[in-house]
Amino acid sequence: MIQELDVQKIRKDFPMLQNQNLIYLDSSATSQKPYSVIRAVTDFYENCNANPLRGLYETAQNATEKYEAAREKVRQFIHAKSTEEIIFTRNATESLNLVAYSYGLMAFQPGDEILVSIMEHHSDMLPWQQAAKRTGAVVKYLECDRQGRITEEDLRNAITDKTKLVAVTQVSNVLGVRNDIRAFAKICHEKGIVIVADGAQSVPHMPVDVQELDVDFLAFSGHKMLGPMGIGVLYGKREYLEKMPPFLTGGEMIESVSRDGAVFAQLPHKFEAGTVNAGGAAGLATAIDYIENIGFEQIQKREDALTALAMEKIREIPFVHIMGQENPEQHHGIITFTVDGVHPHDIAAILDADHIAVRAGHHCAQPLLRHLGVMASTRASLMFYNTEEEIVKFTESLKEIRRKMGYAE
Amino acid sequence: MIQELDVQKIRKDFPMLQNQNLIYLDSSATSQKPYSVIRAVTDFYENCNANPLRGLYETAQNATEKYEAAREKVRQFIHAKSTEEIIFTRNATESLNLVAYSYGLMAFQPGDEILVSIMEHHSDMLPWQQAAKRTGAVVKYLECDRQGRITEEDLRNAITDKTKLVAVTQVSNVLGVRNDIRAFAKICHEKGIVIVADGAQSVPHMPVDVQELDVDFLAFSGHKMLGPMGIGVLYGKREYLEKMPPFLTGGEMIESVSRDGAVFAQLPHKFEAGTVNAGGAAGLATAIDYIENIGFEQIQKREDALTALAMEKIREIPFVHIMGQENPEQHHGIITFTVDGVHPHDIAAILDADHIAVRAGHHCAQPLLRHLGVMASTRASLMFYNTEEEIVKFTESLKEIRRKMGYAE
Repeated sequence: MIQELDVQKIRKDFPMLQNQNLIYLDSSATSQKPYSVIRAVTDFYENCNANPLRGLYETAQNATEKYEAAREKVRQFIHAKSTEEIIFTRNATESLNLVAYSYGLMAFQPGDEILVSIMEHHSDMLPWQQAAKRTGAVVKYLECDRQGRITEEDLRNAITDKTKLVAVTQVSNVLGVRNDIRAFAKICHEKGIVIVADGAQSVPHMPVDVQELDVDFLAFSGHKMLGPMGIGVLYGKREYLEKMPPFLTGGEMIESVSRDGAVFAQLPHKFEAGTVNAGGAAGLATAIDYIENIGFEQIQKREDALTALAMEKIREIPFVHIMGQENPEQHHGIITFTVDGVHPHDIAAILDADHIAVRAGHHCAQPLLRHLGVMASTRASLMFYNTEEEIVKFTESLKEIRRKMGYAE
Repeated sequence: MIQELDVQKIRKDFPMLQNQNLIYLDSSATSQKPYSVIRAVTDFYENCNANPLRGLYETAQNATEKYEAAREKVRQFIHAKSTEEIIFTRNATESLNLVAYSYGLMAFQPGDEILVSIMEHHSDMLPWQQAAKRTGAVVKYLECDRQGRITEEDLRNAITDKTKLVAVTQVSNVLGVRNDIRAFAKICHEKGIVIVADGAQSVPHMPVDVQELDVDFLAFSGHKMLGPMGIGVLYGKREYLEKMPPFLTGGEMIESVSRDGAVFAQLPHKFEAGTVNAGGAAGLATAIDYIENIGFEQIQKREDALTALAMEKIREIPFVHIMGQENPEQHHGIITFTVDGVHPHDIAAILDADHIAVRAGHHCAQPLLRHLGVMASTRASLMFYNTEEEIVKFTESLKEIRRKMGYAE
């Protein structure tokens, strides 16, 4: 049973959810932010604003402490060994680009294979295509079945002697399916292969322990996990980060600079050139507090129940087809679907007229959609702050889609 | 005469300036932010929050409009021809890295010369050193004299047949001196050389018209011009941006993606991979409103007057030596100095005890300091919101430095 009383209390924490005319089912694109997170950003600018890591005066030291406390909060949240393994970036996209440029250009040789799952978001596919172009390496694809499953056997079969790196998402942003990163990491490490996981859709919704997963790199975004925009994270194992060259260069990531070159700073600052987004980091830390205060057990139970309800209702509509697996627990709040004879853009527009926000198009995963034989689809993605009532309104609206488009039924 | 009445009114707009115990003279590191800017960020998250450029529903369209309106505001502010020439980045550092990676790796050939002024901030020096290493090009330095002057003659003499790009700051973050970018651009363009200007210290303090300057690229940060952290700008001439490959790759910067590659989006989105910092952009737009509302005429008059007052008072102290030019108008609010026998870290600590925030160290410009024969120095940097009273307190405190360190005088 979904506890409606609790969610009504929770919704009071979110300014955007006070708008009774918005049913927000696009949390996989960006989540809504609680007042506490917005206040944390405001508080930074109103009470601590200075350039962190630079000034020796008290206000700057306070700003530095806020920023480094946020790093420690992230470390605890994903259970990294050390804060030196937590790099603040702008978003998951930048995190993945950082690995592709810094690790990729250093490590890839002509003929090397980069194995990228076909279900990756463009942000975990294009950087590898680019790194391959620059180094003479080759991108190979790890295929999934029609339900989005990739088995350990699939991975073993796709790996060759030339495979140097595997890039795979923990949760697909289209199908919601979860890959077994822990098992995949084990297979990769047996063969000396580096594994990079995209955690953008997993870290906001489930406990992620990087040491347990034994993943080499993990990327995620603050704005999808109740945090502000403009702040993201790259986790990397120290052994890799230490030998990687810096990606962006500039202030605060050096020990010394001369006309001929530079000695770069220690981790994590080596990878954080220029003035950091300390206001954003403060917001992200508060977002983690908010999530931990509810707890993933409750978050997952709620999101699974809401997903199950939505899928049950949608299955009653004969002309709507859900992509991915049958089991709602293998959707992690993401329900992507097609409607017979209706283009996703029309679906989104009709739902919008009922104040329901969903996403239509290719979901930044064109190769996956093509692999599944679909050109475009519609995605409803929910979070613990959604209600049963919203789900019902959404599915009721969906029922009317074909009629509104002028079909007989 | 400095109008004290006006500044008291202005100071009420800045939360950090309500703290009577803080004399903030570190605006060149990061400026303080008015309530209106903080409110604009809050307003975005409370009333418009959705992922811009992606959703077709009303809230997402509002978010897109906010974001693109911010781009138009920036375009007007620096008088670019088109919004396609305005790329939102995290900060000036990322903007300069973008040019070095994207333009540099495309354009530089072995033996090509990149002419970098010796007074550049590390963020406009290290990216060129890195691009040189990757392409076989060579970084040459454009020297300044002891007052920080670079003449047109200096530039002409430093350019060779091999020079492909000149990187020079508009205002030095150490000496405050202004380079004549317009004249430099003319010289560069006569020889087919690309010119990149670092506007981090100029755009917040003076009218900058990219068409009048005829500069090819200009980088600046939001957080130094009353805006939030995590948002910056790269201006680039369309003719260059169009032929440059993308820098970061991922969502929202493509037309289509296949297993083999991608067709990239048109400008400006080609250079904005992943979820953008729309809250930050909204804040930056409001910062521009704030600056325009006061007007650069008043801002420059005030900052020049405050600088002149500070320099006059400092010159009365025999053991303090101001770096750079004699003329306060050639300092743009930046006063960097040394104190006989006292290390800058001690100076900053003693001033901090009097609640005065200044910056000590190398100011991310080690090669310039070495060029001037100084290992470290102290920088006071002011903005229009500072007061005469603050300047006097600062110089009074400075007078006591040697005595507090145990010297006889």
